[in-house]
Amino acid sequence: MRLGFDVGGTKTDAVVVAPGGEIVARIRRPTGWGPGVVVSTILDLVAELTDTVGIASSDVESIGIGMPGQVAPGSAVITHAVNLGVDELDLGAAIGAVLGVPVRAENDVKAAAVGAYALHGNDPGSAGTMAYLNLGTGIAAGFVKDGKLWRGARGTAGEVGHISVDPHGPLCKCGQHGCIEAFCGGGAIAERWGREALLPVLDMFDAADAGDSEALALRGGLAYGVASAIRVIILSGGVESVVLGGGVTALGDRMLSLVIDDLNASAAASPFMRSLQLAERVSLLPPGSPAAALGAALVGATTTEQEAVVHG
Amino acid sequence: MRLGFDVGGTKTDAVVVAPGGEIVARIRRPTGWGPGVVVSTILDLVAELTDTVGIASSDVESIGIGMPGQVAPGSAVITHAVNLGVDELDLGAAIGAVLGVPVRAENDVKAAAVGAYALHGNDPGSAGTMAYLNLGTGIAAGFVKDGKLWRGARGTAGEVGHISVDPHGPLCKCGQHGCIEAFCGGGAIAERWGREALLPVLDMFDAADAGDSEALALRGGLAYGVASAIRVIILSGGVESVVLGGGVTALGDRMLSLVIDDLNASAAASPFMRSLQLAERVSLLPPGSPAAALGAALVGATTTEQEAVVHG
Repeated sequence: MRLGFDVGGTKTDAVVVAPGGEIVARIRRPTGWGPGVVVSTILDLVAELTDTVGIASSDVESIGIGMPGQVAPGSAVITHAVNLGVDELDLGAAIGAVLGVPVRAENDVKAAAVGAYALHGNDPGSAGTMAYLNLGTGIAAGFVKDGKLWRGARGTAGEVGHISVDPHGPLCKCGQHGCIEAFCGGGAIAERWGREALLPVLDMFDAADAGDSEALALRGGLAYGVASAIRVIILSGGVESVVLGGGVTALGDRMLSLVIDDLNASAAASPFMRSLQLAERVSLLPPGSPAAALGAALVGATTTEQEAVVHG
Repeated sequence: MRLGFDVGGTKTDAVVVAPGGEIVARIRRPTGWGPGVVVSTILDLVAELTDTVGIASSDVESIGIGMPGQVAPGSAVITHAVNLGVDELDLGAAIGAVLGVPVRAENDVKAAAVGAYALHGNDPGSAGTMAYLNLGTGIAAGFVKDGKLWRGARGTAGEVGHISVDPHGPLCKCGQHGCIEAFCGGGAIAERWGREALLPVLDMFDAADAGDSEALALRGGLAYGVASAIRVIILSGGVESVVLGGGVTALGDRMLSLVIDDLNASAAASPFMRSLQLAERVSLLPPGSPAAALGAALVGATTTEQEAVVHG
């Protein structure tokens, strides 16, 4: 049995994966703040999960942990997980050594890409290459090529959030204008929308439905940003399909339909774009998908020399 | 001995490559118009090249032919080579069967990517992944990853010319606004510049140097388009370095320095972009580089089951 964790800014999703790749147990808990609480949350969940499936923690073959931060490939050290209050954390020492189980960490978007491919990579036409585009507070993508996680040089393949797609577009907090993330990142939209709301992007969508002109402009920009990311990912990244996930996708078809409209508009303008059939190559992860935790478990199952190979 | 041909719109570049990968003979000739003339040009050059190196044409191990058109991977049939007046041409039948030598065809930009990697892929830091960005009449890139040509799903990896990087930018002949090719394609610039000149892009650069405001705007757009292509290729394509080639690069440092300025401007604005050191990862193919013909020879040396593996 292998364990996988997706440690997010608000909740931690934990799964037990059987040798055949199927998820046999799953628990979700709120995530605390800071390295100590993050570690205790994971240790508590290991105990609960192993209890649920009736094995000792020493029987766990491997643990994979996805987090929003930077991870050197093959390591268990996470750095700059700012949303979790974690500057640097060696999960190999804090979890692996304590339990006597091998641990690997992975950037959460890359882990989700591995999991999304395992769950959806056999869909017709995926042809072994797929991108997972995470629409969260920030924007980033992970690539799976020939069934393996593909990091690219310096690990930056998929960092599409800071590609500018409009030199006169909104100022990004990175300092450039018109970044994809400035158009469609949940954080950027919340800041530009500026109204008090528990779910600012949902609030903005509701206001747009009611005809608010500022909301309509923001909503149009969101669709343009996501569609631009898809165009960049397919035309430069060369993947067959793009699966969307992350907090903003909770809007479901209300969001996706606008993105499809934008892709269809470029297809209507350009025979070349039409030939690519981009709108047909995009899908949403189902709500509550365990992709990120599953992907983390699959990453954990690999040795330091391998990239995650997906069971599919 | 293996032969490689880069059949361009104006000239054909032909090389003989020894088993160790070095070029032992090279001939350049004007290219004619239409399939018959294209075939006779290649056949004449085969005779001249084999004569030069003192072998019989039956001793040629393989022939690879790069052309500006579409080629199904592993085949010798080229389609839609509009600049050559070729709608469809089976080079296996027209050249291979006649000479009794195996022939493979390849899109010219993809062939140039293979050749550029063989010539420059061992430069420090290339880390096995490199893109060749062709700045010609149109704009397209070819990727080499882990030392092999990488086509991506549906062969469209590197088709960066029709990614829009400005929703209010110039109308592209593809029908969209603000395509990278509309900013920096030689054809698009010649059309928008509109003045009679043998070398319209050079004419525009000279006018910009003299302070012409229209030329300055076009020149700024060219730099923005090329820099945007580089950002897209590295951040989404995930390559370590980008080598520029094609007709527009005949302007050399006059062009490259403006592209570097644009990359440096985004680095100055954004710590994230600065961390990527993009300006240091870009270089020009030397003038008269045989990259495309060499790459065609390397493609020709592969079987239909393999992608070109570079000697490097």
